[in-house]
Amino acid sequence: MFITLEGIEGAGKTTQLQNIVAYLEGSGYECVTTREPGGTAIGSRIRAILLDPENRGLDPVAELLLYVADRVQHIRTVIQPHLAAGRVVLCDRFFDATLVYQGYARGVDRRTIRELHRLTCDDLRPDATLLFDLDPAVGLARAWAQVHNGGRTDAETRFEQEKAAFHQRVRAGYLELAAREPQRYRVIDAGRDVAAVTREVEALLASLLAA
Amino acid sequence: MFITLEGIEGAGKTTQLQNIVAYLEGSGYECVTTREPGGTAIGSRIRAILLDPENRGLDPVAELLLYVADRVQHIRTVIQPHLAAGRVVLCDRFFDATLVYQGYARGVDRRTIRELHRLTCDDLRPDATLLFDLDPAVGLARAWAQVHNGGRTDAETRFEQEKAAFHQRVRAGYLELAAREPQRYRVIDAGRDVAAVTREVEALLASLLAA
Repeated sequence: MFITLEGIEGAGKTTQLQNIVAYLEGSGYECVTTREPGGTAIGSRIRAILLDPENRGLDPVAELLLYVADRVQHIRTVIQPHLAAGRVVLCDRFFDATLVYQGYARGVDRRTIRELHRLTCDDLRPDATLLFDLDPAVGLARAWAQVHNGGRTDAETRFEQEKAAFHQRVRAGYLELAAREPQRYRVIDAGRDVAAVTREVEALLASLLAA
Repeated sequence: MFITLEGIEGAGKTTQLQNIVAYLEGSGYECVTTREPGGTAIGSRIRAILLDPENRGLDPVAELLLYVADRVQHIRTVIQPHLAAGRVVLCDRFFDATLVYQGYARGVDRRTIRELHRLTCDDLRPDATLLFDLDPAVGLARAWAQVHNGGRTDAETRFEQEKAAFHQRVRAGYLELAAREPQRYRVIDAGRDVAAVTREVEALLASLLAA
């Protein structure tokens, strides 16, 4: 089973990823957690280019291609081998993030993005996607607090420097994708306290495992 | 006018690039020289990933996408602006190198490579391509000599570590492309001494400029 977590920065994906692993392992599933970009050694070098605030001149299509390069390396050397071995793969961001950030938010043609995914990633789709939905103003404030209290080691990334309208387009893009694929998507209100979010996530996992 | 130089490592492209600039500027043309990968600041970081011998686990399709990312950034921020300003752009390797190295030599589906070029690079084609053709054994020996006498500052790259059969496929791929597009391609026997190659290149440039 391939499960992805999506949502804006500060939506609590990392915290929930740990809870999800604990829940699934408690139910007897072997889990692997990973992320995009940067789920491989080569991908971590691509990630460094993508997040570096120095690279503000990066063309949106070149950016898209770097994400897809990272994804191909990740799918072939991490995701597919673990899925083939029968493990649950939990991935912090995947193809939907590219559709949303590069497509909805940056304005790259979404048909091009989908076509690239077919051409190079065998059109791999998650079995389930958990969307942690949150007002971007709240998410960015949380992300900043994590930087300042030392809970995050990377400085402000190229994406956090984007204007509020960019992050609103990201949120709206995610909600549109969720509405288009209600079978695959589960939308979680990530504005509540951690305990409430955790309870909802566990209930969703129970229903996913039952299905 | 957009002119590309193609050929294996050690074929003398860099030396000839300087001669070509001198010849064209002597004929009153304003020239810009550039290269792929690494013709931009962001591209130089992509180039470092591509050439690093540490990255021998790089998936062939991920490698392809890194080349295309470098190319998109290069086309949009360097090649197109200079062409629009009426300059001659001379580029050391371009799309044909990707078809040859990733397609003919690594075995990535060449239709996928061409489709990616259409999707992301507006199918940009050079007006003329000079192929410096050479036996790979001679080319690699020359490239090595350049490293050892200090004429080249990069160590052995990931590509130079490939086996002889790889480089033979590269050469054969270039010759096949040249045969398919005789209008665009000029094949130069790069096994002769520099003066003879220079004379042939200048004669080819004279006929290109007349046309």
